[in-house]
Amino acid sequence: MNNNVKIIGLDADDTLWDNEIYFRSTEERFCEFMEPFCVKDQASAVLLETERKNISLYGYGIKSFILSMIEASLKLSNGKCESAVVERILALGKSQLNEKPVILDGVMDFLAKIPASYRLVVATKGDLLDQTRKLKLSGLEKYFHHVEIMCEKNEEDYSCLLQRLGAEPENFMMIGNSLKSDVIPVLNIGAHAVHIPYHTLWLHEKVDTEINNPRFRSFENLRDVIQLLS
Amino acid sequence: MNNNVKIIGLDADDTLWDNEIYFRSTEERFCEFMEPFCVKDQASAVLLETERKNISLYGYGIKSFILSMIEASLKLSNGKCESAVVERILALGKSQLNEKPVILDGVMDFLAKIPASYRLVVATKGDLLDQTRKLKLSGLEKYFHHVEIMCEKNEEDYSCLLQRLGAEPENFMMIGNSLKSDVIPVLNIGAHAVHIPYHTLWLHEKVDTEINNPRFRSFENLRDVIQLLS
Repeated sequence: MNNNVKIIGLDADDTLWDNEIYFRSTEERFCEFMEPFCVKDQASAVLLETERKNISLYGYGIKSFILSMIEASLKLSNGKCESAVVERILALGKSQLNEKPVILDGVMDFLAKIPASYRLVVATKGDLLDQTRKLKLSGLEKYFHHVEIMCEKNEEDYSCLLQRLGAEPENFMMIGNSLKSDVIPVLNIGAHAVHIPYHTLWLHEKVDTEINNPRFRSFENLRDVIQLLS
Repeated sequence: MNNNVKIIGLDADDTLWDNEIYFRSTEERFCEFMEPFCVKDQASAVLLETERKNISLYGYGIKSFILSMIEASLKLSNGKCESAVVERILALGKSQLNEKPVILDGVMDFLAKIPASYRLVVATKGDLLDQTRKLKLSGLEKYFHHVEIMCEKNEEDYSCLLQRLGAEPENFMMIGNSLKSDVIPVLNIGAHAVHIPYHTLWLHEKVDTEINNPRFRSFENLRDVIQLLS
């Protein structure tokens, strides 16, 4: 399938390193903070609803998440939230921002074995500073040509990316854990896509679909993608 | 000076459109919220100190500013801040994020007259979503090849940008309102820089220096830069 692929886009969060587990663990702590006001499920539901409503204005990443947690805490407590709780949410967010990235199994194998003729870019909708920090801390920086931060990962964003890289869709392959963000829009513009599922998926990224496309493959582990490329 | 310039980087905030005035007006409102606890100067000083301390973790942009305002409000009120104040800060931040960009004088003249042979990129350390939104709303999107978001605007960041654009320093000219971010690092890597001062400068961007460099020019208005390029 990949004779013409020259550029490989890799999603970062939950493809190169763990990410969603930190959001879920932060969310657990948030729900604990909210215990005086509501049950856990309600806290989670209001938080998700707040996040969804804020995405068009705040975009993705931890800072947006912290702001949505603060907003949700005010809503859930009906304005009765003490400032100590807001302080704890800020501290929680900072500690998540400081989390050292844990590289996922298979990533080092993939990066070590991929032929040097491929150009690798990180393509993410996270926060630039946070992604750059994780790339440096993880030691993976040297493998990548550049980090591309996208507002959304929709067809338009991918077309812009290809235009900028001077590549045609047939020259591009995207690898990631989200069907919604890393696979479907990429296939729709005529490029190649590989899905590596992660054990935890953010509800916002969930889609119900079965993909039948000659430009699509799915593997359990990133290291298995090498067989397509060598 | 510019025979070899092929790519022009334009800073966005306070070069293409007003920005700092919105931050200062948000800050004014923040100081009003803090009136029960402290005088205006103290509120401003603690806010600036909080912002500076958070930059390495939060980066630049309005979301970081909102988070720092919330943190500063907790500090200034000694934890006695009511949640209504936090709510007002969140609302203030959202309204700043929704602000329609006001294009600065001379920008349209410059963009209309610049020869088509130059490739224009927006080079900013703001928030990607926010900058993209302003570019779309302002109608300036069509003039630019792409938006480059930089973690910092230091020498390393500019060198990476040039590498990615496949350009040598002599082919690149940066235009912006900040000596610290748009001029000094650019000159240091051997590229060209033009300074267009803005009437309000964020204290964080302030430098005391006089620049004497054949690759440097300063103009009062962006439209005056055309004479260098045609």
